[in-house]
Amino acid sequence: MIDQTLLPERLEDILVGSVGELCEAIKSLRVRGAPALGAAGGYGVALAAARSAATDPAALIEDVRGAAGVIRAARPTAVNLSWVVDRVLKAIEEIKESADVEEIRAATLAAAELIAGEDVSINRALGDRGASLLEDGDVVLTHCNAGRLACVDWGTALGVIRSAVAEGKKISVYACETRPLHQGSRLTAWELTEDNIPVTLICDSMAGMVMRQGRIDKVIVGADRITKDAVFNKIGTYSHAVLAKAHGIPFYVAAPISTFDLAHSEKEVEIEERDPDEIRRLGNRQLAPLCVPIYNPAFDATPLDLVSAIITERGIYRPPEMPEME
Amino acid sequence: MIDQTLLPERLEDILVGSVGELCEAIKSLRVRGAPALGAAGGYGVALAAARSAATDPAALIEDVRGAAGVIRAARPTAVNLSWVVDRVLKAIEEIKESADVEEIRAATLAAAELIAGEDVSINRALGDRGASLLEDGDVVLTHCNAGRLACVDWGTALGVIRSAVAEGKKISVYACETRPLHQGSRLTAWELTEDNIPVTLICDSMAGMVMRQGRIDKVIVGADRITKDAVFNKIGTYSHAVLAKAHGIPFYVAAPISTFDLAHSEKEVEIEERDPDEIRRLGNRQLAPLCVPIYNPAFDATPLDLVSAIITERGIYRPPEMPEME
Repeated sequence: MIDQTLLPERLEDILVGSVGELCEAIKSLRVRGAPALGAAGGYGVALAAARSAATDPAALIEDVRGAAGVIRAARPTAVNLSWVVDRVLKAIEEIKESADVEEIRAATLAAAELIAGEDVSINRALGDRGASLLEDGDVVLTHCNAGRLACVDWGTALGVIRSAVAEGKKISVYACETRPLHQGSRLTAWELTEDNIPVTLICDSMAGMVMRQGRIDKVIVGADRITKDAVFNKIGTYSHAVLAKAHGIPFYVAAPISTFDLAHSEKEVEIEERDPDEIRRLGNRQLAPLCVPIYNPAFDATPLDLVSAIITERGIYRPPEMPEME
Repeated sequence: MIDQTLLPERLEDILVGSVGELCEAIKSLRVRGAPALGAAGGYGVALAAARSAATDPAALIEDVRGAAGVIRAARPTAVNLSWVVDRVLKAIEEIKESADVEEIRAATLAAAELIAGEDVSINRALGDRGASLLEDGDVVLTHCNAGRLACVDWGTALGVIRSAVAEGKKISVYACETRPLHQGSRLTAWELTEDNIPVTLICDSMAGMVMRQGRIDKVIVGADRITKDAVFNKIGTYSHAVLAKAHGIPFYVAAPISTFDLAHSEKEVEIEERDPDEIRRLGNRQLAPLCVPIYNPAFDATPLDLVSAIITERGIYRPPEMPEME
């Protein structure tokens, strides 16, 4: 997979050879974005099956289950990761009881491949539905990266924009840089530039000003988890939602159905806090005193009353309307 | 003066020997913060007088006026700079017509020293008045640096906090890092740590989340210019003001009377746009594609209906109430 920490300076693939390497890649954000994490997690379970030295089915399944738990815990807030890992585990349960270790290995790989392939068609369907919300000439503000780098291809928030552009609409984008890890400036600006979709980069703190200047028609972001009362997404999303409401600008969330976790509410979700050095240092620069306490939540929660619509592959839901879950 | 671009890694003074060096220091933000810019500008006029080779009063005054124009233009948005430069020029007009070049030089230096000294007493008075708005135990969010580094001493927004602490109140601070130049993490976090005032550093985009979590009691920021309808301050201030209003949190601006420009309105003020590389690069890191357009306004405007009160050395004004200007 692409090592996303190196962009935009270098476009390089890395080969992941073990579950340990995968977890390192997830934690250090070499792979990030909820749908891409899901696909990586699915392949991680298949990799655990392939690498296990077990010679009987029960021992193999035990190895795979252990690895699944480790992968799930690598990023607890993004629900797609757990969701895909569980789907691959379920594929093992569904094959015949007499299956041998090779059949189990093949089943996990087939499930992982199926899910990764589905991700592309889901994104296309989601993008095509969402494109109906965009008008020719619209200027869209987005945060973080919910593009093809965050998925297997096409993207969620950026997928909506790509679908609208594919329909012949002229769309331009304001990308917020997304501190502290700059997924907006490093990844979204890079993706859109590669696709010749006009993009202007701003700091996160400029969102209010550009909205007040009338430069923004719509806001579209992705999501890491959608509970029955809130959208969890990259830190900064909530501020954009409040600002959008204050300026009468529609605030859209683009996310596949696998992002929904309607059995839980906001207060049950633990928000991952990351290393303070992500804020304190950058490259060769020290940006803050070494001793100062730093609060570094990776995500925030946006209550549904600030969300104009959630765009999914099944359709567009306007909260409090939400999709029926199986 | 302290070279503020080196903090918090190094605390180093620089010696400014010419108006050219002063303008470089202003443009590259070695000295920044509205009141500190004012003081530096005043000394800059005195420096121009001292360095001029003119031997007759008329030629000296012409040199000084030319230098004053150059200094004023180094940062057009901050009104204190123009205000102090004009005050030092006025001091020349006020001395007797028969004054020789040495008397004119002495008059400019005396005026610059007077204004720099006044800045400290103004900040103290402003801080003491503002402290009445803070209660024991309050948690204050601030943006950028409106502390003693931004002034001659004490500070405006941080001066209010220092005065409250001096009165025995327990105050703690959330400092927003303030992209792109990190005055919050580099300067405010450093100043408050030096003074043992508890401070937690966050990214600008986290302000909404910490307000929603109930962590913030008050917001206090400085100002670069206050027109009859808006407060101009570091980019990001407007977003914080909208967020504070949405969460029912008082939003205070702390600024000396010299910051007011009530003869003008928001739309008459040009907002300085700075080098896109401030956002594109940091230290040895490239954070965005080289070709992507970047919008980098240095300031934003917050309309007065979002401002709960403006704290000055003369008193506290609750807009639409504003100070009477001479």
